[in-house]
Amino acid sequence: MKRIFEIDPWKLTSHTFSKEDKRLQESMTSIGNEYMGLRGNFEEGYSGDSLQGTYYAGVWFPDKTRVGWWKNGYPDYFGKTLNAPSFIDLPVTINGHKLDLATDKISDFSLSLDMHQGLLTRSFIYEGKDCRVQFTFTRFLSSVIKEAALIKVKATVLSGEADLQIASHLNGNVVNEDSNYEEGFWDALNEDANGRSIQLRTKPNNFGTPQFTVLLKEVTREDGEVISGDVTTASGEVSELFAKTLTSGQSWELEKDVIVITSRDVADEEQAARADELMAKLTSKTFAQNLADHEAVWDKRWASCDVTIDGDPAAQQGIHFNILQLFMTYYGRDPRLNIGPKGFTGEKYGGATYWDTEAFIVPMYLAVAPKEVTKSLLEYRHEQLPGAFHNARQQGLKGALFPMVTFNGIECHNEWEITFEEIHRNADIPFAIYQYTRYTGDDSYVKDEGMDVLVSTARFWADRVHFSKRKGQYMIHGVTGPNEYENNVNNNWFTNTMAKWLLGYTLERWPLATEAAKKRLQVTDEELAKWQDIVDRMYLPEDKELGIFVQHDTYLDKDLRSKDTIPADQLPLNQHWSWDKILRSPFIKQADVLQGIYFLNDHYTKEEKERNYDFYEPMTVHESSLSPSIHAILAAELGKQDKAVEFYERTARLDLDNYNNDTVDGLHITSMSGSWLAIVQGFAGMRYNEDGISFAPFLPKKWSSYSFKINYRGRILALEVEKDKEVKLTLLSGEDLPVKVWDQEVTLKEGQSQCLKD
Amino acid sequence: MKRIFEIDPWKLTSHTFSKEDKRLQESMTSIGNEYMGLRGNFEEGYSGDSLQGTYYAGVWFPDKTRVGWWKNGYPDYFGKTLNAPSFIDLPVTINGHKLDLATDKISDFSLSLDMHQGLLTRSFIYEGKDCRVQFTFTRFLSSVIKEAALIKVKATVLSGEADLQIASHLNGNVVNEDSNYEEGFWDALNEDANGRSIQLRTKPNNFGTPQFTVLLKEVTREDGEVISGDVTTASGEVSELFAKTLTSGQSWELEKDVIVITSRDVADEEQAARADELMAKLTSKTFAQNLADHEAVWDKRWASCDVTIDGDPAAQQGIHFNILQLFMTYYGRDPRLNIGPKGFTGEKYGGATYWDTEAFIVPMYLAVAPKEVTKSLLEYRHEQLPGAFHNARQQGLKGALFPMVTFNGIECHNEWEITFEEIHRNADIPFAIYQYTRYTGDDSYVKDEGMDVLVSTARFWADRVHFSKRKGQYMIHGVTGPNEYENNVNNNWFTNTMAKWLLGYTLERWPLATEAAKKRLQVTDEELAKWQDIVDRMYLPEDKELGIFVQHDTYLDKDLRSKDTIPADQLPLNQHWSWDKILRSPFIKQADVLQGIYFLNDHYTKEEKERNYDFYEPMTVHESSLSPSIHAILAAELGKQDKAVEFYERTARLDLDNYNNDTVDGLHITSMSGSWLAIVQGFAGMRYNEDGISFAPFLPKKWSSYSFKINYRGRILALEVEKDKEVKLTLLSGEDLPVKVWDQEVTLKEGQSQCLKD
Repeated sequence: MKRIFEIDPWKLTSHTFSKEDKRLQESMTSIGNEYMGLRGNFEEGYSGDSLQGTYYAGVWFPDKTRVGWWKNGYPDYFGKTLNAPSFIDLPVTINGHKLDLATDKISDFSLSLDMHQGLLTRSFIYEGKDCRVQFTFTRFLSSVIKEAALIKVKATVLSGEADLQIASHLNGNVVNEDSNYEEGFWDALNEDANGRSIQLRTKPNNFGTPQFTVLLKEVTREDGEVISGDVTTASGEVSELFAKTLTSGQSWELEKDVIVITSRDVADEEQAARADELMAKLTSKTFAQNLADHEAVWDKRWASCDVTIDGDPAAQQGIHFNILQLFMTYYGRDPRLNIGPKGFTGEKYGGATYWDTEAFIVPMYLAVAPKEVTKSLLEYRHEQLPGAFHNARQQGLKGALFPMVTFNGIECHNEWEITFEEIHRNADIPFAIYQYTRYTGDDSYVKDEGMDVLVSTARFWADRVHFSKRKGQYMIHGVTGPNEYENNVNNNWFTNTMAKWLLGYTLERWPLATEAAKKRLQVTDEELAKWQDIVDRMYLPEDKELGIFVQHDTYLDKDLRSKDTIPADQLPLNQHWSWDKILRSPFIKQADVLQGIYFLNDHYTKEEKERNYDFYEPMTVHESSLSPSIHAILAAELGKQDKAVEFYERTARLDLDNYNNDTVDGLHITSMSGSWLAIVQGFAGMRYNEDGISFAPFLPKKWSSYSFKINYRGRILALEVEKDKEVKLTLLSGEDLPVKVWDQEVTLKEGQSQCLKD
Repeated sequence: MKRIFEIDPWKLTSHTFSKEDKRLQESMTSIGNEYMGLRGNFEEGYSGDSLQGTYYAGVWFPDKTRVGWWKNGYPDYFGKTLNAPSFIDLPVTINGHKLDLATDKISDFSLSLDMHQGLLTRSFIYEGKDCRVQFTFTRFLSSVIKEAALIKVKATVLSGEADLQIASHLNGNVVNEDSNYEEGFWDALNEDANGRSIQLRTKPNNFGTPQFTVLLKEVTREDGEVISGDVTTASGEVSELFAKTLTSGQSWELEKDVIVITSRDVADEEQAARADELMAKLTSKTFAQNLADHEAVWDKRWASCDVTIDGDPAAQQGIHFNILQLFMTYYGRDPRLNIGPKGFTGEKYGGATYWDTEAFIVPMYLAVAPKEVTKSLLEYRHEQLPGAFHNARQQGLKGALFPMVTFNGIECHNEWEITFEEIHRNADIPFAIYQYTRYTGDDSYVKDEGMDVLVSTARFWADRVHFSKRKGQYMIHGVTGPNEYENNVNNNWFTNTMAKWLLGYTLERWPLATEAAKKRLQVTDEELAKWQDIVDRMYLPEDKELGIFVQHDTYLDKDLRSKDTIPADQLPLNQHWSWDKILRSPFIKQADVLQGIYFLNDHYTKEEKERNYDFYEPMTVHESSLSPSIHAILAAELGKQDKAVEFYERTARLDLDNYNNDTVDGLHITSMSGSWLAIVQGFAGMRYNEDGISFAPFLPKKWSSYSFKINYRGRILALEVEKDKEVKLTLLSGEDLPVKVWDQEVTLKEGQSQCLKD
């Protein structure tokens, strides 16, 4: 655990610069605007240890990959997010000396991320032998013109005289830190000295996936006016140099405006013109005006989703940070995109789409954003069905298998124990349709496009199970459950449960499908009968004596012991134990049986929930960022309020406090919804089904109050918890809404509040 | 199945040249001399599809390797045999045209490997527009001067006139076909035009493993005299050009002598002098004399190991081929070496050492070679104990873990399901000590150095098991058995049985250890008690109802069915099914439970053997080359003679008939002993223990007779089976020998024969 930023509800601020924590600082001060994003690298460059990272959404590379021995069904390539041409670079020299915080003496350092809109500001005083100069860098990525990045640098000479040179630099010579054999992934196409632009294309590949072309253009402004410097070019680079000599008390401010175009939106040959057009639009306003436009977008977002917490500023900061980072990564503007586990903050996990989106992000987006945002996420998967059919075929199986890791629907990760085996995703992803339908009450999707997904995945499951003659039941062998600290197990309770759910839900919904869907899908009576048979005779391991569902067939044969028996210096396990030792241990990476109980919450009694929680929680090490929130929610439901709060804190400040000692690699973007879920589904006990919505709030002891707003079936509902077991509900807009709170049913009217006590 | 060579007891001959079968031809005509070896590449070069391969024993490279996600305990590098500088190259031009069998018109092609001593001859007539020229190439690697390769080319003009140019070429510009990103592994150090030599060094690595330097030197002789041509050099290459104009009826014969020195034997700076010295020795004799010396070595080898089969020339050819290839790979001359699964015949499996050596090669070498050869193999492992300790530490475990794949004792393969889990090797490797001791009657090894191995592996097993409170027994979770078509299973019967055996054998032998060994190893009473407790309470899965040992915990839950249900066009499974489908299927790659019954043959009743054989054999697809021989031996013991012969044929001609459709990658060297084992342990029923040796021979119906010789405790014993259930035993040399045949006990005397009937 490590905290490098000060506590503040709306800011991440640090007044110390620590070289050891450089990568951590970079991860934490990442910014993005759905279209692109970057780590908190320094504009002037930095010669010390650092992870340089700029990423353009949807621009990826099929890196060839060799495992020890290839086997049939393995994907051809490992898809990865590319480190993309960098646009923030503003190298500075002072009296011929290159500014570099890795080596220079500085004072009055300050770094601050304004969490209301993702504005990053950094200032420090350069303490040179011959002069002292204060520098301030400010930057943001526009939420209005998605292609625009705006960077400002201000230098003020505090003493002495300074010959300053500042270069507006666009740099295509970037590599991935995780590239094989230090290969570059970009070919330079063009450097236009007049246009101050560079164009690059991803290297050709043999996998039939698209190459991407990008064009970057910069202009530099002083006092709002475009100025010209000496331009030099190198392969994949353009640099425009400005110089000024300042004496003590004088300041110089430059603004660098950048437009980034990619071939995802604009054909190669039209990119230059499009960049000119957008640049004209951008430079028609001042930096301040552009920032104001950007802020207005964020004002509106926060107005319908903010969560307030009184009495716990660290918790308040955590949830603001998480919502900001999540929304900077995805707000549904482009249905071709999704949410990578690290968003725009690092290379790890390849930047691709995982089941995290449906399992952990959808429930939050349903409530904090217009329903179209979630529908975009559902459509993303529907669009990728051809890839999912391909994946199933690769395994010799029928139907569709959604990938574990993907950019285009085709599996692009190469660990068999994950990609072939962590197939619970093939029920979790369709589960989002169920969630969408239940939450919004809109069943048009499940009847038509959604039915394609349900039937195609049902066909996969019906082929993937096998019938055990010995047990007289259907089984699913060779899987990895959500607990990735066990691989290749048989009859993972969660997987079997979710497969059974998927088949049951498909059977239930099939009769209601549109005629068009029925015609497209041609489900036969034999298929329906087979699905029903599997539902009826699915083997779900349980132990009657312990009264628990069993994680998988032989889990109870392990050397079962609680995580308290692990010496503290061996945690997190994944950084201290061999993989062999982890796999054989009883320790659980993340909710597994409990994830199933969370998903299908209304299928189980409180006693069942309690027995399973009490059995599994002590063995769960929460080394997946997706685990604490699920535990917070279940703990809250079971009245274990202190535990719920403890888990909340872990999810809310996972990155802020570097809980798992891995934030250097980037932020845990897809876990960012966890703190919201812990408050809304945990502390406030929100549940919903097709008939309506309910709450069962409590107030954590440390807090004096909390509040949040949700978007529910066309209404905006505010909920404030001021005292324990007391709640104020306000229907801010929309039609009358019946709500159940604890066991009280009330109907809310627009503009009115109701206070309730348990 | 594909047969490209004609049937002949002592020759592999083909009179057709098929471009489609080029790689197959290359594998089959590989030659070696323990020190180095090469595939059947053409001396003049070949522009078509081909796998160029020259390998120097023990010269390897630690290739960096990236799996999707590295985890603790994974090896740092993937060790691989290097494709080494090629020395056979003799590019030819005829009237300016480059000779190339990929494109030229030829006639009268003949290719022949003399299996008595590994002499490869190839001839053909070049049918040019302006001339017809017959070429004959002959080559062998000396068994007397291990560093020497001898190549001869003879050209005879049959019609027209030919300006011939032949270049003696040494070529260091070779790459591995399996290299990552087409990287080269060699740096050229020196090309000496006067000395006709090149020197190269393997590229530096970051893994602390040695770099190897090699020096190659050639001289060219005509009529036995060294001649000089024009020498040219390029980086890593030297070439000496000879030219002659021949008219019809004229011949020209050149001999290329090569010396290859490596830094394994000679320091870099001394290599040139050593090469000169060896070259002087080599050129002091003619090609014919050197060949005669070489043949004399092979005569002696065959005299004590030949197996004859009358009535089945295909079977006879098979066993000669197998013995030749095995002895060309290893004959115990260098205890630092071992036997890679593909020997000198291909890149696959990295050329390193596997458990195959102890399990499949040792039992044969014990009987066909002096006992020092087997002892070299035991010492190889003892020498590598430091690496084995390292491997166990990497997994956080005590004791020593012998590697799955290695050059130096340190694990260098990176699939966790194999390297961390296929740990049965850690009992199979020590099992060779038991075999050695039982066969030779020499218990000096097990008492001292062997005890280091037994105790160190016992300590590993005692830490690797866990106690299941629920079952009240010791278990071994997370293993891969010999059946690699299942991974990460629990309580693999074979693994648990062998671990129990190892602990039991160590306990039995410990009191007899030398005082020095006891002092070194410091086994405590607590350790001994713990080992005994594990032996007493080891869980060995079995099914009482079926009367079988169960392959692993949940094997019987599978969709059990016989391999007859697999459509023929889906075999071999590993080339047609996804890995996912294979893992979940009931089909067994190679003997697993049956391997255990084979190893610990005298622990089980005939009924137990029969029930297990009858249950598992129908599900075994024998897609490991190590499987058929074990089945042949058990089938023979159980009186299933036709089955035994069927399995024999599969092992004897596995490569000759390309049974598994993978001989293109190289020969299955470590399975080459299988046909010998099938005859001697199978058909002849040889068994041994510390008290003596026994036989129970039968004669396969197709055969009219067979015979073999074994080296047993200082005697040479010949056994001839002329009629079914009739055998003639002859003690060729040595002291009186009591032998049991069926249930008859006889004592053989030197120089006398005894005939017995069942």
